[in-house]
Amino acid sequence: MNKFSQFSQEWQPKINQKLTDDLALIAPSSNNAEMAPMLAYALLNGGKRLRPLLTLAVLQSFQAKISSDDLRIATMVEWVHSYSLVHDDLPAMDNDQYRRGQLSVHAKFGHANGILVGDALLTAAFQVGTLATSINPKRLFKVINSLALRAGVTGMVGGQFYDMQNHQGQVITKEWLLDKVYQPKTAALISHALLAGGYLLDLSAADCDLLRQYGENFGLAFQIQDDLDDYQQDADEEITSLPHLIGLTATQSVKANLLSDARFCLKKLGQGHLNFNAELLDQFLQQLENK
Amino acid sequence: MNKFSQFSQEWQPKINQKLTDDLALIAPSSNNAEMAPMLAYALLNGGKRLRPLLTLAVLQSFQAKISSDDLRIATMVEWVHSYSLVHDDLPAMDNDQYRRGQLSVHAKFGHANGILVGDALLTAAFQVGTLATSINPKRLFKVINSLALRAGVTGMVGGQFYDMQNHQGQVITKEWLLDKVYQPKTAALISHALLAGGYLLDLSAADCDLLRQYGENFGLAFQIQDDLDDYQQDADEEITSLPHLIGLTATQSVKANLLSDARFCLKKLGQGHLNFNAELLDQFLQQLENK
Repeated sequence: MNKFSQFSQEWQPKINQKLTDDLALIAPSSNNAEMAPMLAYALLNGGKRLRPLLTLAVLQSFQAKISSDDLRIATMVEWVHSYSLVHDDLPAMDNDQYRRGQLSVHAKFGHANGILVGDALLTAAFQVGTLATSINPKRLFKVINSLALRAGVTGMVGGQFYDMQNHQGQVITKEWLLDKVYQPKTAALISHALLAGGYLLDLSAADCDLLRQYGENFGLAFQIQDDLDDYQQDADEEITSLPHLIGLTATQSVKANLLSDARFCLKKLGQGHLNFNAELLDQFLQQLENK
Repeated sequence: MNKFSQFSQEWQPKINQKLTDDLALIAPSSNNAEMAPMLAYALLNGGKRLRPLLTLAVLQSFQAKISSDDLRIATMVEWVHSYSLVHDDLPAMDNDQYRRGQLSVHAKFGHANGILVGDALLTAAFQVGTLATSINPKRLFKVINSLALRAGVTGMVGGQFYDMQNHQGQVITKEWLLDKVYQPKTAALISHALLAGGYLLDLSAADCDLLRQYGENFGLAFQIQDDLDDYQQDADEEITSLPHLIGLTATQSVKANLLSDARFCLKKLGQGHLNFNAELLDQFLQQLENK
């Protein structure tokens, strides 16, 4: 078993447990017995927890001990990711009835509750941050700022806005798709996950920037892999993703270049830090390479 | 002109200016030229800015100087309030085509954009907090925690959830309406506005609790006044608000008791602090009394 598999198998259950515990704090059934299970349905739905894993991988790569509040900070982005799936599935957005083989939140609980569950999860993401009282406040502020910056109008929400335009059949270019949709919608939040690790470790601005670049390159490659996996389905739904725009071979080449750029960031981090072991973060890249 | 009018006339334009300035930071047109004006439409729409005014009124009542970052912290709740109006107006929620005499956000920009504009405003509320770098981080954390707690599932979102049930014609009682709808949906965010002032001033837990109680009593009275104003309209729409449930006279009596309880909190605060002048916060109560 390689480092990536070992790491994921160790930390996925701990991430799920932290999400479960914090949900019980934030949405006690005694307060709202109806909404608490809806939030659990949306949040604890078998996701791979890629984003929290990336934050924790940064800590592990720098040989840092991972505290309970580090884990908590790592999960903040997962609350945001979960809300975004709920709202993206809404009838006025992508109108998806299913998510990971189960009814989507609005399909199961109704349209209004789909909106409200997403709103509650987004709000909770920031509340989770304030529960991590053992974390240095200055570091935590950087995490909150980065999360809001990359989740909001200049990040994920803005990316979804332009993605909706894409679905409406406008003429698009490769550059537009990467800059206006893939970067803000997918790569921004993934790069946040890396930055959160850097902020928790109080790394220099230059090192954090290398983590951000790794995250953006990995995030774009991750989105492109998703396009490759959904190639036929997107064609059926008349969605123009990158391989439809520039062809499969050119898309594979874009992906390879992004992974190479991400790897270069790890090399630079290793040059500056004797205690940095690039192996685990490199294996996140290999997961995409081997597909 | 009384203190309340003078205070509102002084601070409303400053609140609007801070919202405008922070919106330009958070949603630069250079990044998303399409969404920036949508956010401005939702946020800068002629609201009375009651909630930020209440935070600032606490500072003024304790003779504190109001800094630019105090003003910024006071506006956080207004971003949340603005998002809530956008989402409440959505077709799946209250389905309102108009807000303050103008098209609602979804009616003007489309359903998907109604969802996204709300999501962006909610995210921005927390981003605004991280811009207030001159504020003591411990105080700021209390503000962020209180805002998330009172905006999310145990606060406003939960109140809207139960309000939707109310609209669906379920049997309700006075206690259910006050505890499950009015308190979380309206009073929670208003009590946050008062608490934010207490946190900025680093008041004791006991004093903050008096401010919270003032806020909850004022907030419930404010919602009940709204019901009284909309009595006929609610009847036409078959919405059961408090006066429909217990009659107009009993409702007026509930309102009077709430205002009296709020006034008692001011009296207690005055007993503990020589530098506390209750006049301004008392006039917020008088605004509801004189209606």
